[in-house]
Amino acid sequence: MSTESYHTQHAPFGAFASFTVGLVGGAGGFGQSLRGPARQNVYVGFRRGREAWRLLPFFVPPKSSAAVAYTGEAAQVGAPPPEPLRLHSLSPADYERRLDWASDAWTSGGFGFGLRTPFDRIPEPETLSAEAARFHFAPVVCGYLSYDNTAGAEAVELVFGIGEADAQMRPLDDTRPALAGFAGGNLFGYATAPSPDVSLRQGFSVFEDVPRDVRGLHVLGGETALVFKVPAGARREFPLVLGFYQAGVVTTGLTASYAYTRWFDSLEAVLQHGLEQHARYTELALRRDAELAASRLDADQKYLVAQATHSYLASTQLFQRADGRLLWVVNEGEYRMVNTFDLTVDHVFFELAWHPWAVRNTLDLFVERYAYLDEVRTPEGTRAPGGVSFTHDMGIMNHFTPAGRSSYECDNLSGCFSHMTMEQLLNWVLTAVTYAWRTEDWDWLGRNHPVLLRCVDSLERRDHPDSAKRDGILKCDSSRCGTGSEITTYDSLDVSLGQARNNLYLAVKTLGAWILLGRALRRLDDVAAAKRATLAVSRLCRSLVERFEEDTGFFPAVFEQGNHSRIIPAVEGFAYPLYLGMEDELAPLAPLIERLRKHLRGIFKAGVCLDATSGGWKLSSTSTNTWFSKIALCQHVIRRLFPDTLTPEARAADRVHADWQRRRGCGAFAMCDQILSDSGKVCGSRFYPRGVTTYLWLLE
Amino acid sequence: MSTESYHTQHAPFGAFASFTVGLVGGAGGFGQSLRGPARQNVYVGFRRGREAWRLLPFFVPPKSSAAVAYTGEAAQVGAPPPEPLRLHSLSPADYERRLDWASDAWTSGGFGFGLRTPFDRIPEPETLSAEAARFHFAPVVCGYLSYDNTAGAEAVELVFGIGEADAQMRPLDDTRPALAGFAGGNLFGYATAPSPDVSLRQGFSVFEDVPRDVRGLHVLGGETALVFKVPAGARREFPLVLGFYQAGVVTTGLTASYAYTRWFDSLEAVLQHGLEQHARYTELALRRDAELAASRLDADQKYLVAQATHSYLASTQLFQRADGRLLWVVNEGEYRMVNTFDLTVDHVFFELAWHPWAVRNTLDLFVERYAYLDEVRTPEGTRAPGGVSFTHDMGIMNHFTPAGRSSYECDNLSGCFSHMTMEQLLNWVLTAVTYAWRTEDWDWLGRNHPVLLRCVDSLERRDHPDSAKRDGILKCDSSRCGTGSEITTYDSLDVSLGQARNNLYLAVKTLGAWILLGRALRRLDDVAAAKRATLAVSRLCRSLVERFEEDTGFFPAVFEQGNHSRIIPAVEGFAYPLYLGMEDELAPLAPLIERLRKHLRGIFKAGVCLDATSGGWKLSSTSTNTWFSKIALCQHVIRRLFPDTLTPEARAADRVHADWQRRRGCGAFAMCDQILSDSGKVCGSRFYPRGVTTYLWLLE
Repeated sequence: MSTESYHTQHAPFGAFASFTVGLVGGAGGFGQSLRGPARQNVYVGFRRGREAWRLLPFFVPPKSSAAVAYTGEAAQVGAPPPEPLRLHSLSPADYERRLDWASDAWTSGGFGFGLRTPFDRIPEPETLSAEAARFHFAPVVCGYLSYDNTAGAEAVELVFGIGEADAQMRPLDDTRPALAGFAGGNLFGYATAPSPDVSLRQGFSVFEDVPRDVRGLHVLGGETALVFKVPAGARREFPLVLGFYQAGVVTTGLTASYAYTRWFDSLEAVLQHGLEQHARYTELALRRDAELAASRLDADQKYLVAQATHSYLASTQLFQRADGRLLWVVNEGEYRMVNTFDLTVDHVFFELAWHPWAVRNTLDLFVERYAYLDEVRTPEGTRAPGGVSFTHDMGIMNHFTPAGRSSYECDNLSGCFSHMTMEQLLNWVLTAVTYAWRTEDWDWLGRNHPVLLRCVDSLERRDHPDSAKRDGILKCDSSRCGTGSEITTYDSLDVSLGQARNNLYLAVKTLGAWILLGRALRRLDDVAAAKRATLAVSRLCRSLVERFEEDTGFFPAVFEQGNHSRIIPAVEGFAYPLYLGMEDELAPLAPLIERLRKHLRGIFKAGVCLDATSGGWKLSSTSTNTWFSKIALCQHVIRRLFPDTLTPEARAADRVHADWQRRRGCGAFAMCDQILSDSGKVCGSRFYPRGVTTYLWLLE
Repeated sequence: MSTESYHTQHAPFGAFASFTVGLVGGAGGFGQSLRGPARQNVYVGFRRGREAWRLLPFFVPPKSSAAVAYTGEAAQVGAPPPEPLRLHSLSPADYERRLDWASDAWTSGGFGFGLRTPFDRIPEPETLSAEAARFHFAPVVCGYLSYDNTAGAEAVELVFGIGEADAQMRPLDDTRPALAGFAGGNLFGYATAPSPDVSLRQGFSVFEDVPRDVRGLHVLGGETALVFKVPAGARREFPLVLGFYQAGVVTTGLTASYAYTRWFDSLEAVLQHGLEQHARYTELALRRDAELAASRLDADQKYLVAQATHSYLASTQLFQRADGRLLWVVNEGEYRMVNTFDLTVDHVFFELAWHPWAVRNTLDLFVERYAYLDEVRTPEGTRAPGGVSFTHDMGIMNHFTPAGRSSYECDNLSGCFSHMTMEQLLNWVLTAVTYAWRTEDWDWLGRNHPVLLRCVDSLERRDHPDSAKRDGILKCDSSRCGTGSEITTYDSLDVSLGQARNNLYLAVKTLGAWILLGRALRRLDDVAAAKRATLAVSRLCRSLVERFEEDTGFFPAVFEQGNHSRIIPAVEGFAYPLYLGMEDELAPLAPLIERLRKHLRGIFKAGVCLDATSGGWKLSSTSTNTWFSKIALCQHVIRRLFPDTLTPEARAADRVHADWQRRRGCGAFAMCDQILSDSGKVCGSRFYPRGVTTYLWLLE
């Protein structure tokens, strides 16, 4: 499809790095901890005999040769102008691209290029053998170049190269003869196995022939490439490995270095490992691809799962602290905030399938360092002791903020950048119980019984410090807000989702949290506390039922000030009990669920929560800013609990959502989350990990 | 002068880093190992009361607030547009700038801002106390902000800040309460001492008031600043320190880390040291400033010395190797080549004054790793054994090329990027004897006696392998050139300076080398070898005299193919014997010197070696590409040996040369070397260290 044009982040596990490529006419390449794509030209393609090179369109043609800075006047007036580069940039009509769960492959006639980003179920890291740890945690991406020249009458050359003048590169065989390829300092590089069919190029242009030193390179040049030869009559596939490496302490606030440095002492070691394990990585990637292919999802859904998983992996970061303990981070895409809790609670479904220990790691650090106590401001305007909650995040761009403080939350605000005290309290409860229940880590649940009890207290007091005034709905703002008020994770939407107090979305999420708390406390034989949870559920259910607008058939988004926005995330909070198989807990909620069903029936209409222009899902009827990861989460809940509410238009929107990502409105920034529902243009949350909520679709 | 607009690199010693600032309307800031200025907005200025901020013009006003990426739609349609920033960018007419040898100061009314980059005579590093080593090698730049508000009726605020969204910064007091300031990771930062008069700002804009967290910052924001308060009626000066830090191995090929990591364990340690030693650094900078001010140079020359010294320091790099030995590197400006030998030989005058051990360090590494043996191609077309020479450089961008190979030199070329075998052989001889003679390091000279003898052999054989055919002038090309031929350091000029064989410039430089060799060998009591040197001098002098065009009164630049270019560097080779006080050696060369005098008398005319448009010096009459560092070197030689040849026009050119550097043609890239003599525009060698040849002017 020629309108497709999108970057994908090809990333190892836990390295906060990606090789980004795919946008038509766009640069990309090796990026370490960036907010968006790197700025390298990526040269991938082939030529038959002495024809022009045919390259995938992953580069911005250089305006003039970098050699001019050296040759000065001579190049300007003396020497003849250089021959125009014999490059032909393939247009999307000339090739096919196929993004799978762990593979991204381009084919054009006999030519093939692919990148593999396998992921696997990783047991507790501390139990892994060194060999297994090296396999799972190597900061390496595998790929290949291939050509079927069996019917060809002349030799074909394949090329993989990088052009970036700022990042001067070096030939790897200077330091490791077993590697044919290039590296940028000790930080990133690419290689294949040396062979008579492989040659290296480096120069101001890898497609010009001169100048060359004694081994055929010009080490001054800002462009490097591997060239592979496929004789007439032959079919060849060459392995490629792309590696990253960052030595030493990379964080501040908390001192930590990449965990992979425990098993690899250099970039060269990473690349050599990648070549040695290339077949195993490939096999694993193909297994993942086959699993997604075998699912009952349609092609658009499969694409969304695949693209989302790639960007998730690119945001992951596995550290070891100074004392040797592992430290898990998911960075918040372009914002690079550390372990934003609103994302943790959404990543939990994917992470519990693949690396469940990562969830526990984050929960523990929230308790250890990012919990706090506050007071609350009651609706009556008085102050009262509040309770425990957790920060929005743990810092930004490898900097861990001081204990009890996030990088995001500011004071005296009522919109974006205010505190999310209630939201994060719910996130700890939901993530913690979901982790323990799914992994059956009852020891951990037992150790955290006191934390759960503090959460029960805090939840109740935010409803109201006076138990007689509780109705289950958040009515108090944290004292941390100063003169402002709490917001929800939906910080950039309008008030329908942005205000925490008296908010429908947050109330149903609170219901979900109380259901999980009740089960966890019963499991812990804490009958008294479990009773408080049961009471909270019934109280909240009753209150919500009362908020239903019987006349319109809708719930208002905010139970205040005559709000009449209609929102899809009214049902988001059911995701957790559904995921844990607690459907029986929902039976007593039938009056609420029936009203939510009516609500949903009313909103899947063009101009309400389906965009009148695009047909895409709008989280709120009154905001064109819609978030794909949350759409995916709500789709899952609705397909499981309210499938009959999905109109054919609502079901058809997967195509719209996939097109948003794979066209230029979002495609320049890999997976995007905040999208304008009418135009499909990204308006925030680029390069974003949270799309892995789509993993829930595979559980349906 | 309002046409002035230029960046200056404010750099510590040996850190290959600079804080670059000064270009009107241009970004700059903290740059580590870059090819040109960084891309940070630098906010420096003041405001009275609640007036608009008045800032020096070191920033590119942001087009839209970075907050939009977070607030999405809300910022676009919901919220009122943010108030326009109350910033007033000062124009050059509003302030004065004064660049001194180790200070750069801006004043505007009562406001003052300055940066200090002191340098000192550094004894052998291995003999230094830890305290002295910390003082000399700290990767820190000191500065200040001041305001004289004695006559003011309201408080004034001063600001120093940085804006760069890619380099997320962090407040330093998270990790070191004794520092008020910000850092980008562990890599760079700025600080002052905490005080009630100092406050910190961080946000999407440091000039907007919201949002702010509990300590008044917004750690998400890409802009940071220190704000200093000066009460009405008071005069205040606040210290500022700017620091760099790069931990661990930063090189490849040869394994090395920054020497300063031996004495500083973190960026924080560097910044704190900078604050503690601020007064000493300031005192040292002012001493350097006073020395330059007291010299007999005119204002233009002083400016050139100051600007050149700044860019030299920015290119220096002091490493320690894995075995603990120190490793000295000067990077070649924008090209970032390691220890380019053509530069080493020009830096020697500055380095022998301030850190002479650095010269020895480089000479030793050339012998240890970057010497090679070749064959030569005779004029008769035969091959014969050649001799020892040295590579053009040792690598590029922290990568050391394999032994015996440079990053620059390629095969089968006759122009730019060919081999410089003879040039580098001369450079080793000249640098080595100059080092030993000046420092009286006779031990080292003795140890290198065998190397000198190999150089004598090699020099003779490049003249001609058959002693009967020798006339002192290079006639053989190295076999490394393949089908091409050797070039000189003047690679980007036309053939008048570019071709090595039969080249006037190189022949006089050869004369200089033989003079130094003769003295060194006599000192070593090697009578036989000294005799060969004496013979070579007289032979070469005679040959050169014969090449003089008695009809035109000029020397041709190349003794081949009817070349009639006229060149200034005909006298460059005298710099070394003059520097070493060997004037007596020149007496027997009177016939040559008299003809060179005639040559010079003829060339200092508009349209010959003075540019007809600008009046600047042209190294060659047939090339508009002229190199400032070489002009400066030749000016020194000519003022000492041929002062009577300088026409008033030739003497007036210092103003032209200074204007080239301080206006926009070169100013965007700090000190530039390759300049188009008509327009004053840089055409290569930006951000360049070699301008320290101007140091010779202070010896006149």
